[in-house]
Amino acid sequence: MLFAVIMAGGRGERLWPLSREETPKQFLKLLGEHTLLQQTVERIAPLVSNEDTYVVVGREHVGIVREQLPDLPKKNVIIEPMGRGTAPCIGLAATRLARIDPQGVMIVLPADHAIVDEEHFLRVLNDAASVAEEGTHLVTLGITPNRPATGYGYIQAFSPLKAGDLGTDCEVLSVERFAEKPDLKTAERFLQEGGYYWNSGMFVWRVDAILREMKEHMPQLHDALRDIEEHAGAPDYEQNLERTYAGQEANSIDYGVLEKSEHVLVIPTGDIGWSDVGDWSALSEVLETDDVGNLIRASHIGVDTSNCTILSKHTSEKKRLVATLGISDVVIIDTDDILLVMDKSRAQEVKKILKIHATKQESEKA
Amino acid sequence: MLFAVIMAGGRGERLWPLSREETPKQFLKLLGEHTLLQQTVERIAPLVSNEDTYVVVGREHVGIVREQLPDLPKKNVIIEPMGRGTAPCIGLAATRLARIDPQGVMIVLPADHAIVDEEHFLRVLNDAASVAEEGTHLVTLGITPNRPATGYGYIQAFSPLKAGDLGTDCEVLSVERFAEKPDLKTAERFLQEGGYYWNSGMFVWRVDAILREMKEHMPQLHDALRDIEEHAGAPDYEQNLERTYAGQEANSIDYGVLEKSEHVLVIPTGDIGWSDVGDWSALSEVLETDDVGNLIRASHIGVDTSNCTILSKHTSEKKRLVATLGISDVVIIDTDDILLVMDKSRAQEVKKILKIHATKQESEKA
Repeated sequence: MLFAVIMAGGRGERLWPLSREETPKQFLKLLGEHTLLQQTVERIAPLVSNEDTYVVVGREHVGIVREQLPDLPKKNVIIEPMGRGTAPCIGLAATRLARIDPQGVMIVLPADHAIVDEEHFLRVLNDAASVAEEGTHLVTLGITPNRPATGYGYIQAFSPLKAGDLGTDCEVLSVERFAEKPDLKTAERFLQEGGYYWNSGMFVWRVDAILREMKEHMPQLHDALRDIEEHAGAPDYEQNLERTYAGQEANSIDYGVLEKSEHVLVIPTGDIGWSDVGDWSALSEVLETDDVGNLIRASHIGVDTSNCTILSKHTSEKKRLVATLGISDVVIIDTDDILLVMDKSRAQEVKKILKIHATKQESEKA
Repeated sequence: MLFAVIMAGGRGERLWPLSREETPKQFLKLLGEHTLLQQTVERIAPLVSNEDTYVVVGREHVGIVREQLPDLPKKNVIIEPMGRGTAPCIGLAATRLARIDPQGVMIVLPADHAIVDEEHFLRVLNDAASVAEEGTHLVTLGITPNRPATGYGYIQAFSPLKAGDLGTDCEVLSVERFAEKPDLKTAERFLQEGGYYWNSGMFVWRVDAILREMKEHMPQLHDALRDIEEHAGAPDYEQNLERTYAGQEANSIDYGVLEKSEHVLVIPTGDIGWSDVGDWSALSEVLETDDVGNLIRASHIGVDTSNCTILSKHTSEKKRLVATLGISDVVIIDTDDILLVMDKSRAQEVKKILKIHATKQESEKA
């Protein structure tokens, strides 16, 4: 069997003020008529049906997921009592899928990414599933970098294996090491040296393979997951899940398993137009801009305005005009109650504003 | 007698989008709790009572003037059927005042200027009135420039007269020439050479003196004003006023009279903190900024934000937050229906946006 597991627990703080605690980025129509979550499900639909697609999400957002994905079976929404990183999230899903088919292949996808070339992406997923099917390897999708991005982790890939041995003729690499988000100089070196790929956070493996690797590298989590599963159907299931989850340290699957395992492979995706839409500057990399680099989603009049991202989103029907004069590389996000204006190169730092905002709100309450 | 004539006909286009056709700048609370018009009247109140203060305004704004100046006698609102520049405006007022006291002194003030040192300003007006009282001279107030501004016209002043002859001991200069808004290089030269003053558009003269000079230098306008005055009280007064006014070429008192007359004097005001609040960059010159040069009139969170002017004005009670990150010398004017973001050095060019906006609205109507 082929499952898809979509992780919808992100907070998307760097896309504030559009992305909010109540409605994080994955639930927003950032890239078109549908939300990022809906696009993620639709994108893989040719490969995985709704019946076999699972969404892992925090309790507070279950309602949004059901509303946005009405065709998804109710039982396919896996509820996390709280965010504890991707390792518990993936573990919880794998445990659930093991009930159905432990030898099934699961495709793990974040709910908030953009992919331009969907056909190409599906071919890569197909290849990855073929490789994973055999049951030994954990496959990660490595994005071929087209610029020295500092916002992504990198995977250094090793000499190619004999592809034929893995049941596919696509390029398959073994992992040398995982590198955290580099500074610009390091990123430039990565590109120059070659053999480095962006860590996309997209994985393909067999259910039993990831559980086996978890048992080896994260035994405490593995025990906890077994305990949770043993309470399945019991009246105290929820209570036990919450208590057990609360006892877990937050950890990502990258740190917890992939960096330690000896069975990790990378399949380079080639240029599929991928982005994690991690901040406001990323948006203009995946959406088409005008001939002076502006990405405009607003009623707009601009004079000498270039490389700007301007987005106006209001609940009121009243038409609002955004006028700009003599500005470049500026991001303007105009919402009902918050207006953000920032230098595009500082897009990663939006959290600083958020932090001050939270402190202010706290002190106003007090 | 001492009269004040306040010209309230400006359009304040460069302060768009706060200043609009319906409510131009002089009717806005740009600098405090009261509107610029109210501040202009209050400022001279120690010298000129409401009874002797006249406001010249276009028909469409008579209602606002009466509302903002409830203590002004109704008859003191002089209505212009249309804007034709300051020459007809001042002429119309002078003709009206001549009914009361042709030898009275009239202080002419724009309704939309800022003056920080009001006491000093009143002393200057007093001096100017003393000089004007004698009946020969037209007195203009010249602002001592503190920077090479390119947004103001300049007056080059000549060797001082013998002040005693003019009935005052203040500094009184004769005019060498009027210079139009200079480029930066020229403005810098003006400051270096000395003897140049900003043309403030504030004048003091006797009613009969300005009418006499108009008769000499703008005889067509003078005839028209006489014709208008002859219809005073007649049933076709309004109709005649409109027709006669429509027939006038638009002209400023500077071009029409002051540049030609041989009786113009300049009284340097010294540093009274004057500004015509001509555009959004001017605002931070007359209002106090924070220690990194920001002028903020908004609920604001800023990270690395300096020399910005940020103004948020909404009719709704709902609190709106403006957040800024990594920007300098940017003007943000956030209103109900229009948001303007621009480089501060481009503040003079707001009209470009307005023009495009008007064209757009026209084409939408069509």
